[in-house]
Amino acid sequence: MKYGARNTIKAKVKSVKKGDVMALVKFDVIQADEMASVLTTESVEAMGLQPGDEIQLIIKAIHVLPVKA
Amino acid sequence: MKYGARNTIKAKVKSVKKGDVMALVKFDVIQADEMASVLTTESVEAMGLQPGDEIQLIIKAIHVLPVKA
Amino acid sequence: MKYGARNTIKAKVKSVKKGDVMALVKFDVIQADEMASVLTTESVEAMGLQPGDEIQLIIKAIHVLPVKA
Amino acid sequence: MKYGARNTIKAKVKSVKKGDVMALVKFDVIQADEMASVLTTESVEAMGLQPGDEIQLIIKAIHVLPVKA
Amino acid sequence: MKYGARNTIKAKVKSVKKGDVMALVKFDVIQADEMASVLTTESVEAMGLQPGDEIQLIIKAIHVLPVKA
Amino acid sequence: MKYGARNTIKAKVKSVKKGDVMALVKFDVIQADEMASVLTTESVEAMGLQPGDEIQLIIKAIHVLPVKA
Repeated sequence: MKYGARNTIKAKVKSVKKGDVMALVKFDVIQADEMASVLTTESVEAMGLQPGDEIQLIIKAIHVLPVKA
Repeated sequence: MKYGARNTIKAKVKSVKKGDVMALVKFDVIQADEMASVLTTESVEAMGLQPGDEIQLIIKAIHVLPVKA
Repeated sequence: MKYGARNTIKAKVKSVKKGDVMALVKFDVIQADEMASVLTTESVEAMGLQPGDEIQLIIKAIHVLPVKA
Repeated sequence: MKYGARNTIKAKVKSVKKGDVMALVKFDVIQADEMASVLTTESVEAMGLQPGDEIQLIIKAIHVLPVKA
Repeated sequence: MKYGARNTIKAKVKSVKKGDVMALVKFDVIQADEMASVLTTESVEAMGLQPGDEIQLIIKAIHVLPVKA
Repeated sequence: MKYGARNTIKAKVKSVKKGDVMALVKFDVIQADEMASVLTTESVEAMGLQPGDEIQLIIKAIHVLPVKA
């Protein structure tokens, strides 16, 4: 399968908490070598992002899509 | 700083490609131990997600927010 | 009303499940002729997307905004 | 493959427009019978959503993920 | 019109920058009294969020949907 | 801290409602002068967006990320 997304992380399910409508699933990361972000060129310039910069990548859990073979 | 998000990945900028409005930034992952996903309880049940399952996490680059100290 | 979004689907509410904070609403589709996706040009090339390709469009329920006249 | 998402639409690529960083892809819908939305229970009540209501579903193109077998 | 979203800000277009595929639009805020955020209960507890806390709300521009009457 | 996002709103927590998995937090806005939206150039043209237009900005609560110093 090919996905229209730049980030694929291999992971193993650690815990599942089922709520009435939404559920929270935790994973141990198996492999995550490279990540990609798309943002406005304005934001890149306001941050002064350059190769070598150490940063944090913040991702809301709601934007993470699990796929199971 | 405390963020209202469950996923924080430490990473280093590898490349920056600035377009006319949007930019694509690539990162080498320094540390990503645990990830979390929120989805409907229906989806969890349709997938039969259980601890130990190996899965892939797909994340569109647009949903990745870089933060720089 | 004009919306800053490329996808509009006409639909009828089939069921409503109200949870403590979030609710899940199901719809029967009345009309959905065309859809649009924005992704990185890199992803389009990695997928080799071309006119005529049959694909699946995956959309998390959280990204679907109901509007009622 | 099983996806942690409630909406799957079968579609055929109609056009591809590649920009410098982002691309816009248009699809003809082959099949889209049912859709689902997650929103706050507060929003459901403010809208007075009930079975039978005809509504529009608005989805930004950026939230549509193409998957190709 | 009723929207399945908790945040509505009245604003006036200040500038429009059209790129090849994506565009960046800036607005002057006319009215924004209240905002709402949905996050995991875990995140709320990790942040120790309580009434009276002063915080920042970060929103990627891609998640802002303009609607024109 | 510098964020890869165009919108920052200063606000004060008004109420916190914790559900089993997700929580809804309400804020009083302290300061929100300017907002930005990214959408397709096609959408901008379909809407005929021009400086001076009064519009509404709709944002699902799930896309609002609180950050606390």
